[in-house]
Amino acid sequence: MSTHELLARLKQPAPGKIVLLVLDGLGDLRTAEQPATPLDRATIPNLDALAARSSLGRLIPLAPGITTGSGPGHLALFGYDPLTPEADIGRGVLEALGEDIELGRDDVAARGNFATVDAEGRLTDRRAGRIETSECERLIDKLRQKLAAELEDEGIELYPGEGHRFVLVLRGEGISPAIADTDPQELGVPPFDPEPTSEAAVSTADKLKRFIAAAGDALEDEERANAVLLRGFSQLPALPPMSELYGLSCGAFAGYPLYRGVARACGMTAFNPGKSFRDTVQDAANHWEDFDFLFLHHKATDKAGEDGDPEAKARAIEEVDHGLPELLDLGPEVLAITGDHSTPAPMKAHSFHPVPLLLHSPTAFVDECRVFTESEATRGTLGTLLSRDLMSLLLAHCGRLKKFGA
Amino acid sequence: MSTHELLARLKQPAPGKIVLLVLDGLGDLRTAEQPATPLDRATIPNLDALAARSSLGRLIPLAPGITTGSGPGHLALFGYDPLTPEADIGRGVLEALGEDIELGRDDVAARGNFATVDAEGRLTDRRAGRIETSECERLIDKLRQKLAAELEDEGIELYPGEGHRFVLVLRGEGISPAIADTDPQELGVPPFDPEPTSEAAVSTADKLKRFIAAAGDALEDEERANAVLLRGFSQLPALPPMSELYGLSCGAFAGYPLYRGVARACGMTAFNPGKSFRDTVQDAANHWEDFDFLFLHHKATDKAGEDGDPEAKARAIEEVDHGLPELLDLGPEVLAITGDHSTPAPMKAHSFHPVPLLLHSPTAFVDECRVFTESEATRGTLGTLLSRDLMSLLLAHCGRLKKFGA
Repeated sequence: MSTHELLARLKQPAPGKIVLLVLDGLGDLRTAEQPATPLDRATIPNLDALAARSSLGRLIPLAPGITTGSGPGHLALFGYDPLTPEADIGRGVLEALGEDIELGRDDVAARGNFATVDAEGRLTDRRAGRIETSECERLIDKLRQKLAAELEDEGIELYPGEGHRFVLVLRGEGISPAIADTDPQELGVPPFDPEPTSEAAVSTADKLKRFIAAAGDALEDEERANAVLLRGFSQLPALPPMSELYGLSCGAFAGYPLYRGVARACGMTAFNPGKSFRDTVQDAANHWEDFDFLFLHHKATDKAGEDGDPEAKARAIEEVDHGLPELLDLGPEVLAITGDHSTPAPMKAHSFHPVPLLLHSPTAFVDECRVFTESEATRGTLGTLLSRDLMSLLLAHCGRLKKFGA
Repeated sequence: MSTHELLARLKQPAPGKIVLLVLDGLGDLRTAEQPATPLDRATIPNLDALAARSSLGRLIPLAPGITTGSGPGHLALFGYDPLTPEADIGRGVLEALGEDIELGRDDVAARGNFATVDAEGRLTDRRAGRIETSECERLIDKLRQKLAAELEDEGIELYPGEGHRFVLVLRGEGISPAIADTDPQELGVPPFDPEPTSEAAVSTADKLKRFIAAAGDALEDEERANAVLLRGFSQLPALPPMSELYGLSCGAFAGYPLYRGVARACGMTAFNPGKSFRDTVQDAANHWEDFDFLFLHHKATDKAGEDGDPEAKARAIEEVDHGLPELLDLGPEVLAITGDHSTPAPMKAHSFHPVPLLLHSPTAFVDECRVFTESEATRGTLGTLLSRDLMSLLLAHCGRLKKFGA
């Protein structure tokens, strides 16, 4: 029996609320060069006091040694197995979610690049000289104006991204994501046609061929961005919603669009509280009565890790510490504080290292951990779990799972 | 390769004996209100001394966050995966085992309720006013007498249970458990007929229809218990016996029938030593030479946990401590002491929390744990395992598993 089958069988209503607070990229490293992690260095009296009356443990995001992106990292925290094809978030969908573009179940999204081709149509720069974001916005405006009728007819929408990146969304009947990438990933050759990889995608491919040709014509007078490349055609993963899986109504409070998008893909209602932790807690407080499960996302930890700035990461953790009492005052039955992955400052990137986990609830075993750090969490009663086992623990501590068998 | 396939391939004889001592519901909680667990509070010099020269660890009965009933909890300790359909113990079988009714592989058991119906046959009380056990015994006697010939002809046996509950057992040729519940789980409607859910169950369903009608007639003059409801039709799970899986002859020593029943379902020979731990050890001593594997069950810990009485639970653990030297004197090669699940006194119920495990053997790594408590076990060398992985460890420490590969 799969975990989802088991939980669907055992789920039961209970009055308490579950709060999952994700400090993005929370986990960090002790090394010879960085003998204390940001969690070690941060002054976090509220988190430490909470740790002393909670259960600690660690989460492995996907599998030992596997570094996860933000999408799969969050899917795992929400109880999905990101390693199954059903939970695969395509590149196009990820870009769309990151630009806060709402996607319906049947819409298809692709990641676009502005590129440069020569007179024979051969690629000379796959990123159009890495144009500025403002230039990208100008080009998208130009396409929207010159191709207004075509885009309307074909059900195609264009959205600027960062630098040379844009997002293409196809909406309408009979759309299929089974389209091969047009980016040949090399120079000196023309872009590929958008070939259908299944019979169902033939008409979608035709729409895209017409669009690519029209875009080429519309951009003919551009020096650098005179062509478009498309890849990662994809639809929202058809995930069973969390309401169905766990019997929970779920709200997401995240200042960045990607996390709202992933939350929506899991059936949550998503809110944008802005980027400060206090505002995130305030927004959750405003919607406290509407949900059984509230996911709060804090991005600053990950950004500091990516910047290789352990001091900034410690301050981002301290920001959460300052706001923690207000979150506790809301009275969650279960509060879990963890990360979607580690982003160690010395690595300036996501990593595979386990992430500390704090679980507070009246039925949480108060273990011998007294502070909230990576190494203290190693000694915690929750042990080291896969992220996708966290939801079972949250439901269990909230009294939302019946006994299996008699 | 499944664990069972692996063990079947690697098993080898060895002279030593394995003792598995289950303190039912052993695990408990530290919380703000209960800062010390019964294990923390109990005075257990023998268990602590043993812990100091053993390996400690923890068992997760089924999966993180999943609370198990006693049946699946024990099946897991015996090395079966309770989450597979083959290991499912139906409600009827569980009730029968709990009443010490011997079931053959082909017999079908159902859980019965005495109930009240009105003049039109509609349910007005699914539990017949929660009659006393003595009243239930009187009613079963009445049915046995009035329907003696019918019951004999149909191969039906009736056994009183607690309160309004009874057990129905069908024995004979061509019996099938594929029968839907007759309990509609609501009032104001008549009970369902016992409908066959497969072709093979048609004749069984007919037997049951005749019985239900005859029982209704026989109970016509009763004010409250004038009807019967049947549910949970089931057969013993078809588990491969432990002798075959592990090459062990197995004896069970348990004062409560349910545990003897589950042990028998796994191919063990079961004995009833009564309820004291000393008597349980004495009974095991009397049969010491007959078995390679001896399962000793101690129920009092679970009962105290269910009663929310941590002092009684501590005393139940101390009772085991007093009897431990006699058990050690028998000279088991491997002695494991653990629980089938946690029953924390503050929760007054089974829970999902990991259960401490002590494993003593000449080949057990003597770790840094010095006392036998939940939190000390967190630091143990065995780590945190699924209960169904315990049998491999017991066999291994007993020298009963060959090397895999060369």
